[in-house]
Amino acid sequence: MKKPKLADVAKLAEVSPTTVSRVLNDRGYIGEKTRKKVYAAMEELNYYPNEIARSLFINKTFIVGVIFPTTSNPFYGQLIYHLENVCESLGYKVLLCNSGGREDKERAYLEMLQRHQVDGIIAGAHNRGIDLYKKSRMPIVSFDRILADHIPVVSSDNYRGGELATQHLIDRGCKKIIHINGPRELETPANLRRDAYEDTMKKNNLPYRTYEISDTYLEDLFNENLDLEAVFASDDMIASKVINEAKNRGIRVPEDLKVIGYDGAEAVRMLLPDLSTIQQPIEEIARVSVEILMEQINQSDNFEVKNVTLPVELIKGKTT
Amino acid sequence: MKKPKLADVAKLAEVSPTTVSRVLNDRGYIGEKTRKKVYAAMEELNYYPNEIARSLFINKTFIVGVIFPTTSNPFYGQLIYHLENVCESLGYKVLLCNSGGREDKERAYLEMLQRHQVDGIIAGAHNRGIDLYKKSRMPIVSFDRILADHIPVVSSDNYRGGELATQHLIDRGCKKIIHINGPRELETPANLRRDAYEDTMKKNNLPYRTYEISDTYLEDLFNENLDLEAVFASDDMIASKVINEAKNRGIRVPEDLKVIGYDGAEAVRMLLPDLSTIQQPIEEIARVSVEILMEQINQSDNFEVKNVTLPVELIKGKTT
Repeated sequence: MKKPKLADVAKLAEVSPTTVSRVLNDRGYIGEKTRKKVYAAMEELNYYPNEIARSLFINKTFIVGVIFPTTSNPFYGQLIYHLENVCESLGYKVLLCNSGGREDKERAYLEMLQRHQVDGIIAGAHNRGIDLYKKSRMPIVSFDRILADHIPVVSSDNYRGGELATQHLIDRGCKKIIHINGPRELETPANLRRDAYEDTMKKNNLPYRTYEISDTYLEDLFNENLDLEAVFASDDMIASKVINEAKNRGIRVPEDLKVIGYDGAEAVRMLLPDLSTIQQPIEEIARVSVEILMEQINQSDNFEVKNVTLPVELIKGKTT
Repeated sequence: MKKPKLADVAKLAEVSPTTVSRVLNDRGYIGEKTRKKVYAAMEELNYYPNEIARSLFINKTFIVGVIFPTTSNPFYGQLIYHLENVCESLGYKVLLCNSGGREDKERAYLEMLQRHQVDGIIAGAHNRGIDLYKKSRMPIVSFDRILADHIPVVSSDNYRGGELATQHLIDRGCKKIIHINGPRELETPANLRRDAYEDTMKKNNLPYRTYEISDTYLEDLFNENLDLEAVFASDDMIASKVINEAKNRGIRVPEDLKVIGYDGAEAVRMLLPDLSTIQQPIEEIARVSVEILMEQINQSDNFEVKNVTLPVELIKGKTT
């Protein structure tokens, strides 16, 4: 099963390859009968004009590379769905790269995308120390992380989200509120949620403590805080783990323990409609990211780097 | 920000384009000093050899197109994650197409992928009446649906899954068991789950009834079956809706109502660890699909069409 080539079309239509090419590009005089023969041959062979050859000629592939941790996570799955949709509406295709949180994979993908001459990249895989971004001259938009001075960053307001979540728990009458987050040295945007939590607790003269994800953080958290009133988890998956662990220990949510998450992906809200969370504007993040990427692709030299921060929203569910 | 070209490298290195090309392809005699100058210029410009030109030359793009409804759904998100991972390990890239359940989009993607000369397609978007698949001569693998005689189908054992779910509810002592599924005319593989449910109920001399998804199916189901004992939902998202509706009506799961779902995506099992479900072997489906696609790509003419059905597993949770 070889891909049919222009020469195969010419052979079947009993014309020269030049004639087929003229029909395809609507160039020069071609009789109606010849045109029909060529189209019939294309149809029969299921031949598609080679977009690769065209890319080479115009030095543009209409491909955008997207690098994210994994489509398996509902938040990234939804973000990538919207990114692909917006690209498609503009005539761009998406090459998907799941870096799975691995630095070596992210680096290999970056090189691959450049070899493959993609027109631009949207990068949201939070690995550290990838200096390839700094060297790159390609159009790139970063989701939620500073990659280099010349690369614009699109994010939602992580600090504000952290404030909203913490203040909501305080307003509900909680004093002993714990935060769960990834290790600070990962330099993810979730660190801003942590900063906001700690600042808000300080402002209210309340003691604060952040548990970093580890093999035992969930047990530790419950064993070390028997008087625990509330948990602000830095994403909805972690929030659901806290709720399930509470259930297993006979702790009632929200009566004995209030829990709020972060992200608000559609699938998660469908599965856990009761969960209080901070809703990121996922579709808007996708739209703005592609918009800024297209500005870079089209305006080339006079493009000005600007970072965009989108608003978040508190969803008051039944778990707080 | 234009992509650097071979000519730019030549100019900076002060050599001819032919010399750069020789260095890149390791062809002909090139002095060590010249080679170093060329590499230094490539490094400085962040130049990547053009894989597009190479594709055209060898008539192979090392790209696989994947067409699925949406990465936003945790099941497809995880399947696509694994598909991309397996492709990547074999040196293939993935062009992502979210058809969003729309026939026109699926058709447009199919044409785009062929124009773009992908080496093969993995298709799992269950739209009807797309005869482009029948005409295509490309390597294609279908997930879970018959597309054409020459296209192999990879699926998990949908009939067995339906049997396992239904029998499990009967074994738990339920008699009034309802099934929820999409409209039968959609011709999805979930129809086999429905057939198995209806056959198993008949075999046990129990009355059966399938509710098809509509705007009011959830209300109807609860209002029309006050003595309802169990629900077998054709996917986990629907199962979670049933559980939430039961909760809102003060019906206890599993005491008053037992619920089992289908799919068992990682993210859903993390969010709803108590949910009983039929686990599809998602990673295995991805591995086998890519394997069969590669057989087609590599063996071309003597490829034999074979369909593969993978085993499913009953997960006994706390909702049954």
